[in-house]
Amino acid sequence: MKAKKILKKDYAKMALVLHKKMHGKLEVVSKKKLVTVDDWSTMYTPGVGAVSSYLAKHPKEAREYTMKRNTVAVISDGSAVLGLGNIGPIAALPVMEGKCAIMKEMAGIDGFPIVLDTQDTEEIIKTVINIAPGFGGINLEDISAPRCFEIEERLKKILNIPLMHDDQHGTAIVVLAGLINASKVVKKKFENLKVTIVGAGAAGRAIALLLVKAGITNVIVTDSVGVIFKGRKGMAQYKNDLAKVTNPESIKGLVAEAVQGADVIVGVSGPGTITRAHIESMAKDAIVFALANPIPEIKPDDAKLAGALIVATGRSDYANQVNNSLAFPGIFRGALDRSVTKITDEMKLAAAKKIAGLVKKPTAHEIIPKVTTPGLVKAVASVIK
Amino acid sequence: MKAKKILKKDYAKMALVLHKKMHGKLEVVSKKKLVTVDDWSTMYTPGVGAVSSYLAKHPKEAREYTMKRNTVAVISDGSAVLGLGNIGPIAALPVMEGKCAIMKEMAGIDGFPIVLDTQDTEEIIKTVINIAPGFGGINLEDISAPRCFEIEERLKKILNIPLMHDDQHGTAIVVLAGLINASKVVKKKFENLKVTIVGAGAAGRAIALLLVKAGITNVIVTDSVGVIFKGRKGMAQYKNDLAKVTNPESIKGLVAEAVQGADVIVGVSGPGTITRAHIESMAKDAIVFALANPIPEIKPDDAKLAGALIVATGRSDYANQVNNSLAFPGIFRGALDRSVTKITDEMKLAAAKKIAGLVKKPTAHEIIPKVTTPGLVKAVASVIK
Repeated sequence: MKAKKILKKDYAKMALVLHKKMHGKLEVVSKKKLVTVDDWSTMYTPGVGAVSSYLAKHPKEAREYTMKRNTVAVISDGSAVLGLGNIGPIAALPVMEGKCAIMKEMAGIDGFPIVLDTQDTEEIIKTVINIAPGFGGINLEDISAPRCFEIEERLKKILNIPLMHDDQHGTAIVVLAGLINASKVVKKKFENLKVTIVGAGAAGRAIALLLVKAGITNVIVTDSVGVIFKGRKGMAQYKNDLAKVTNPESIKGLVAEAVQGADVIVGVSGPGTITRAHIESMAKDAIVFALANPIPEIKPDDAKLAGALIVATGRSDYANQVNNSLAFPGIFRGALDRSVTKITDEMKLAAAKKIAGLVKKPTAHEIIPKVTTPGLVKAVASVIK
Repeated sequence: MKAKKILKKDYAKMALVLHKKMHGKLEVVSKKKLVTVDDWSTMYTPGVGAVSSYLAKHPKEAREYTMKRNTVAVISDGSAVLGLGNIGPIAALPVMEGKCAIMKEMAGIDGFPIVLDTQDTEEIIKTVINIAPGFGGINLEDISAPRCFEIEERLKKILNIPLMHDDQHGTAIVVLAGLINASKVVKKKFENLKVTIVGAGAAGRAIALLLVKAGITNVIVTDSVGVIFKGRKGMAQYKNDLAKVTNPESIKGLVAEAVQGADVIVGVSGPGTITRAHIESMAKDAIVFALANPIPEIKPDDAKLAGALIVATGRSDYANQVNNSLAFPGIFRGALDRSVTKITDEMKLAAAKKIAGLVKKPTAHEIIPKVTTPGLVKAVASVIK
């Protein structure tokens, strides 16, 4: 325990030192040095005028003549940054830079962070539309629920480039991948898994919808009030919609009621919302995904003592890390390479299966591959078509 | 003549080939490779959370911990691209990429192109404000007059980072630098120069205002209708404002009337608007800046035959190239390095003097330094404070 705490402290300090030393993590470089008159005259005027004239007549050829074929804007309003909440655009910037660094390092994508000075839904939508022409894709990031749902859904309809809110779909894809393998380990039929999701924010909603889409019929979602069921009074519209496709037995109550006899509990809320008593009431060989970051809903050791056979977290220092980086670099790589304009549910399901398939022999300690798994990005990219 | 035409044709073709081969000119790279668990844990979660938490409390330290200290957005709506006119955002992208490449190569700045899907003044202003937090500076580019004036002036008031519309001020600074040296070559007192500016768009207005600011009392501006004078009917507001500080003798008529006895004519319009007859009517040792690009208002050879002693153009294949790249990289370098929040007229005047001073012994064939002049960026940056 003590060793782990020290380790965590060190990463905070190490990160502060590293960031201050580097003054940010990204650099924009020219693919060609400007040395000769020819360099200047072809990279810029007068030669570049011919490229602009050509694109004015053939705008679709932007992917041949400009960086648009390989750029992804990583856009956040800083309203739901990691587990830190609404800390604003400047404080969100290091996270967005990190995401772009991952895109480049893993998938060769030219990601660029755009942090917004507005948290108004209409303004965000307009701003994204207005800056979209130069980008080949858009990764929305760390935008709080429920605004993130409307922003993503409306932008998907308007834009003709791939767009994904990673906190929703990246997380859902990796959770699904983990559950596919976890069901094999516990020898239960995937579709028959009874799943309780603690947390009905961006990630909770997306996980629920994707698991249902993947064939699981018994998914229950809980929020801070309790179980979401059809007809519960005073719910936001998206929760009413969620109630329509989840909780088929119309269970009411709190997490304790929802989790009784469940095969899987997925926490996407905050520390302390999953207890040992919850896990003790689950079915045999319980599967616990405690994804709050950096402090999970329940400590992995406690979850195991309560009877969990498989535990996953969002952290790199435990087994089974649910890490979005397993999904988004390959998804955008595939979308950019094949000029895919929408990331569909079918692609998300296929990506989850691909990620799951990279673990050759799933065990309780390895249901999810590591980001360093050879061929990961290529495998995920291959199903985005 | 023939040789020149072939050369021009080649740059167009060479640029098309180069752009298609490279698929755009810029790349976004991570300053640190992601190899070890420590790399991942400090560049991204969990370590990056400490940096975000720190910046939430100390947002001004963004320049220490993020890329903001070195980023400049190069923003265009594609409404006035080079001499090509309103060709839209996609066709503008190669020019903006080129500008970013120049920023990096000359001044180490991380420029990123943002091309806009709107040409509405209010939407452009809002969009720039909304995406500003992650940038250390903003270079507006190729936005048509008169919208560019309002957009720049309003944004300058609202934003607390340096912002400059380069087509206006970059051009004005380099023209002023050239005129400082040209006046020495023809041995005329700078302040006494009589200057006629042909063209009252973005560049024409900015050149006129900066020359007046630099002490020249007799500046006349003409537009497509003729000379701009106080009280001319039906003028746009910015032309009324221009009339207040120019044309002290209230000359009326066309370019022919304005240019009689002038020491300097500056063309920022289009091919053919300056004639041999115009130059023949000028004072002795006439100075002709024919800046329309790629085809100047009058051919340099024709201007000389008509009596011009000094001819400058916007082209790299003639002597005396008025090239914005002499100014903007150093201006933004200086502004970023010293956290300058506004580019003032005083800075523009000082930059012009610095650029002029880099030509040790000005001659008719060398009134302006080349972009490859050693120490150029550093010299310009040094006066931005």
